[in-house]
Amino acid sequence: MWGCERDVRRSDGAGGRRPRRVPGFGPQVLCGPAQVMFLANPWTGAVFCLALCTADWRYGAYGLGGAALGTGTARLLGVARDRVETGLEGFNSCLVALCFAVLLGADRLSTVLLAAAGCVVVTVVTAAVVRLLGVWDLPSLTLPYCLLAGAVTVAAPGFRRIWPHGHSLAALPRAVSGPTALRPGDVGGAFFRNVSQVFFQDRWYVGALLLAGVFLASRVAGLVACCGSVTGILTAWALGAPAARIADGTMGYNAVLVALALCGVFLEATPATLLYALLGAATATALTPAVAALLAPSGGHAFTWPFVLTTFGFLAAVRSFPRLTGRGPGPGEAAPPWQVTAPTPSV
Amino acid sequence: MWGCERDVRRSDGAGGRRPRRVPGFGPQVLCGPAQVMFLANPWTGAVFCLALCTADWRYGAYGLGGAALGTGTARLLGVARDRVETGLEGFNSCLVALCFAVLLGADRLSTVLLAAAGCVVVTVVTAAVVRLLGVWDLPSLTLPYCLLAGAVTVAAPGFRRIWPHGHSLAALPRAVSGPTALRPGDVGGAFFRNVSQVFFQDRWYVGALLLAGVFLASRVAGLVACCGSVTGILTAWALGAPAARIADGTMGYNAVLVALALCGVFLEATPATLLYALLGAATATALTPAVAALLAPSGGHAFTWPFVLTTFGFLAAVRSFPRLTGRGPGPGEAAPPWQVTAPTPSV
Amino acid sequence: MWGCERDVRRSDGAGGRRPRRVPGFGPQVLCGPAQVMFLANPWTGAVFCLALCTADWRYGAYGLGGAALGTGTARLLGVARDRVETGLEGFNSCLVALCFAVLLGADRLSTVLLAAAGCVVVTVVTAAVVRLLGVWDLPSLTLPYCLLAGAVTVAAPGFRRIWPHGHSLAALPRAVSGPTALRPGDVGGAFFRNVSQVFFQDRWYVGALLLAGVFLASRVAGLVACCGSVTGILTAWALGAPAARIADGTMGYNAVLVALALCGVFLEATPATLLYALLGAATATALTPAVAALLAPSGGHAFTWPFVLTTFGFLAAVRSFPRLTGRGPGPGEAAPPWQVTAPTPSV
Repeated sequence: MWGCERDVRRSDGAGGRRPRRVPGFGPQVLCGPAQVMFLANPWTGAVFCLALCTADWRYGAYGLGGAALGTGTARLLGVARDRVETGLEGFNSCLVALCFAVLLGADRLSTVLLAAAGCVVVTVVTAAVVRLLGVWDLPSLTLPYCLLAGAVTVAAPGFRRIWPHGHSLAALPRAVSGPTALRPGDVGGAFFRNVSQVFFQDRWYVGALLLAGVFLASRVAGLVACCGSVTGILTAWALGAPAARIADGTMGYNAVLVALALCGVFLEATPATLLYALLGAATATALTPAVAALLAPSGGHAFTWPFVLTTFGFLAAVRSFPRLTGRGPGPGEAAPPWQVTAPTPSV
Repeated sequence: MWGCERDVRRSDGAGGRRPRRVPGFGPQVLCGPAQVMFLANPWTGAVFCLALCTADWRYGAYGLGGAALGTGTARLLGVARDRVETGLEGFNSCLVALCFAVLLGADRLSTVLLAAAGCVVVTVVTAAVVRLLGVWDLPSLTLPYCLLAGAVTVAAPGFRRIWPHGHSLAALPRAVSGPTALRPGDVGGAFFRNVSQVFFQDRWYVGALLLAGVFLASRVAGLVACCGSVTGILTAWALGAPAARIADGTMGYNAVLVALALCGVFLEATPATLLYALLGAATATALTPAVAALLAPSGGHAFTWPFVLTTFGFLAAVRSFPRLTGRGPGPGEAAPPWQVTAPTPSV
Repeated sequence: MWGCERDVRRSDGAGGRRPRRVPGFGPQVLCGPAQVMFLANPWTGAVFCLALCTADWRYGAYGLGGAALGTGTARLLGVARDRVETGLEGFNSCLVALCFAVLLGADRLSTVLLAAAGCVVVTVVTAAVVRLLGVWDLPSLTLPYCLLAGAVTVAAPGFRRIWPHGHSLAALPRAVSGPTALRPGDVGGAFFRNVSQVFFQDRWYVGALLLAGVFLASRVAGLVACCGSVTGILTAWALGAPAARIADGTMGYNAVLVALALCGVFLEATPATLLYALLGAATATALTPAVAALLAPSGGHAFTWPFVLTTFGFLAAVRSFPRLTGRGPGPGEAAPPWQVTAPTPSV
C-alpha cells in the first residue's frame, strides 16, 4: 500500500512505475483529502472527512466538496488521467476550500462562492506548478494551495464582500513571551494537534482520528508521522518556543508533513532517510516562526509554506549525497535531471 | 497585423516563425511603447506617446526617451536583432522612465539621471529574465520593469537626493472601507482608466486614446482589451472592492493586460482561450490587493506584478489542458519544453 | 593563482577545466573563509581568520569552526570531492556561524549549539541551491548563507532560548535623514569597511587586513576589490545616502563582492568586463536599501542579498551581450545552457 502511494506521488512531476489507479469518480474524490498526507487511499480519505466532521460537519463538506470540484475541473480540462485518478488533483482544492471556510466563515454565501472559484483556479495553478517544478524533478506538494490561499487571505481585507472582520490582521511581528516549560498534558495534546493543524483543526481527537486514517493506509507512514510529530515538539521546546504555541500544534504540523515526504514517499524508508527526514522536520519547525514573521506585516498566514520550502530543499539536495541514498551516481543518475525526468507530455 | 505581433512576441523566449521586423531606428523606438500592449506597430506607439502627452508632455518625453535609450543600449551591447527591431527592448525601459517621472517628480534633474541609468540597467535585467525564463519557454513580459521599478521605489526613501517626499510611504495594509455601489459614471471611467493606468495615468481620455491605438493595430486586440477591462470591473465589484478604487482604474489594469496576453498574443484567439483569458483577468484582479498588501509594509507599489504572475501561471499551465488548446500532445508537444523551445543562441 | 580560483569557482555549478585541489583537511578548511572572496587559497584564509581575531578572537573561532564543520559535514555526506577540497563547502557555513555570533551573542551556549546545527543544515541548503541553479549554469554564491541566516534571524524572536533581546527588531522602514556630505575621514574608513562588513566587522583595520589577504592571493583581485569599494562609495554618495551609512561600510560591501565576481571570477578580467562589473557594483549599492526596506518589517537583515541578486542577474544576462564578452555565439555557445552546463552527476 505504502509502496503504491510512493509510486503515485513520484508520478507527480517525474516518471516512475505505473501507479495503481483508483477506479470511479467517488473513490478518486475521496483520495483527495488522503493525498494531503500523501496517501492514495479512498478509505483513508473517508476517515479524514469523518475527522473533519467531528469538528464541524461543514468543514467536512467543504473539504470533500473542494476535492470533488478540483478533481472535476481537472477532468474537464483534460489533465493527465494518472494525476486525476490518484487524487493528486483533489488535495490542493480540498485544502483551499477548507482554509476559506475556517478563515472567512463557513456559513457565508460569499465564502461558498469564493471557495468554488478557488477550486477552479487552483487547478490551473497546480498545472503551472507541476510544469515549473518539473525542470528540477520536484513534486508540487501543497505549493498551489499555499500560493492561492496565501494570496486570497492577504487580499481579503481589500474586498468588503469577502472579509468578515472589520479590521486587517496585518501587524509587525513581536518577540514572544510566556512560559516555555511543557507539562505532560501539553505534550500529549501537541502530539495529536501537530496532525490536526494540517487541516486547520485544533482539537486533539481530530488529530487522533487523522492519525488512525494514516495507519489504516500504511503502518510505516503512521510511525513516520509519529516520529515527525515528536521531532517537532522536541525542536520547538529546545529552541524555546512558548508552551502554548507548542500545545496548540501550530509549531509542529509542518514537521509531520516533512517527515512523511522525506521518509517513505519521495525517498525510500530506511534508517538513513529517517534521520535525514527528522533533520528536515526539525528545520521546518525552526522555519515556521520565520515564515509567520515574514507574512505577518501583510496579514498572511504560514499555511504549509515551511513544509513546502524545506521539502524542496532536502529533495533537491539529496542527489548530492550518495552516502545517504546508499548508491553512487549510477548510469541512471549520471544523466542531468532534465533528461531522466522529462514529464510526460500530457502532465 | 495581430498575427504578426503574436509571432513577434512569441519570439520573446521561444522559437516561432520569422517575425516581421520594423526597419529604421525611429520606428523601432516607437514600437517600444506599443509593445507594452504587445503590439509591434510604430503607429500605435506614436498614438500611445500622443496619449501620454495629452496628460503631460513630459510624460510623453520620458516614455519615448526611455524606449530610445533602452533600444539603443541593447543595440550597443549586441542583443539579438529580432528583439531590438520589434520593440521588445524598448517597452520595459519606456515604463521604467515613465514610472520614475510619475513617482519621483518629472521636473527634477535627479529623476532624469536616474531614469537614464535605469534604462541601461533594465536592459541587463531584461537579458537575464529572458534567459532565466527560457527554461520554461515563458516570455519576459514586464517582469524586468517590475523588478527594477519595484527595487528603486522601495530603495528611494533611503537616498536623500532621489526621494522627493519627507517621509516614507511604508505602512501596514488596512481593511478597506467606503461604498461599494458603482454608479454609471464610475463604470464608464473605470472602463477607460483600466487602460490608462497601465501607463500610470488616471484620466479617462488618455485611456480612450490608448484604446484607439490598440484598435489601430488590431481590431481583435482592441475587442479583447475591452473584454478584459469589463471583466476587471465585474470581478472587483463582485468581490466588494470600494467603488472609488474601481473607478480610478487601479483594480482593473492588470485584467486588460492578462486578457490581451492570453487571447491572441501567446495563445491563439479562440472562444476557448477567450474564456481562459477572462478567468485569468479575474484572477489578476483578485490578486491586485494581495500584491499591494505584500508590498505596502516596505513602501512598494503593485506595478504590473499581478499581470506578470497570473500570465506566467496560466501560460505554464496551458500545456496540461489539451482540451483547451484543442489538440492532444502531438509529436512536437511530446518533447519536453527545454528541447522544443531552445532560445536562439544570440537571444 | 587568480586564474586558478576562477576555475575552482567555475566548477561551482558548471563544468570547466580541472581545478587545482588543496590537499589536507586543514588547508581545505582554511580555504573556506577565503572563498567568501572567491579565493581558494589557504594562506588567504589564514589571514582572514587573523583579521577576524583582531576584532574579537571569538569571531575568528566561530568563522574557522563554521568552515570546519561545513567541510566535515559535506565530506561525511559524500559531496563531490572537488567542491570539498577547494573550500566551496566551507564559506557558507563560515558566514553562518559568524553571523550567529555577531547577531545572537558569541558567548551564549545556545548560540554555539545553534551555529553548529546551522552549519549542518547549510550544507543541505548548499546542495539544493547548487542543483536548482545548475539549470541556468549559475553559481550558488552566498545564497545558501543568505537563506539560512535570513530565516534564523527572522525566526529568532519567536524562540525564547535563542533571542537575546527583549523585543523584536521589526519596524517599518523610514525615510533617511542626516547629512550626505562626505568628509575625507569618512571616505577612507568607508573604503576599508566596505571590505570588513562582508564579515560583519565595522573596524577599518579588519578591512585593511582582509584586503591584504586578497592581494596575497591575487594582485588583480585586490585591485578589482578596490575598484568595487570606490564604486560603492561614489554611487551611494551620488544617490544621496547619509554619510554615516556610507562611512560604516553598510552601503558598499555588496559592491566589492559584485566587482570581484563579475571581473576575474566568473567572467575574465578585461576592460570591458571591468566596466560591466562596476555597473553591477553600482546596481548592488542602489539595491541595498531596497533589500533592507523589504526585510525590515519582518525584522530581517540585508546580508549579502544585494550581491547575490545582482550577480545572478548580470551573469544570466551576459550571454546575450556578444560584444561584451568579445565573441559571437560560437558552436559551444549555440547549445542551450542546460546542455553545455550539465553538472557532473555527483555535484
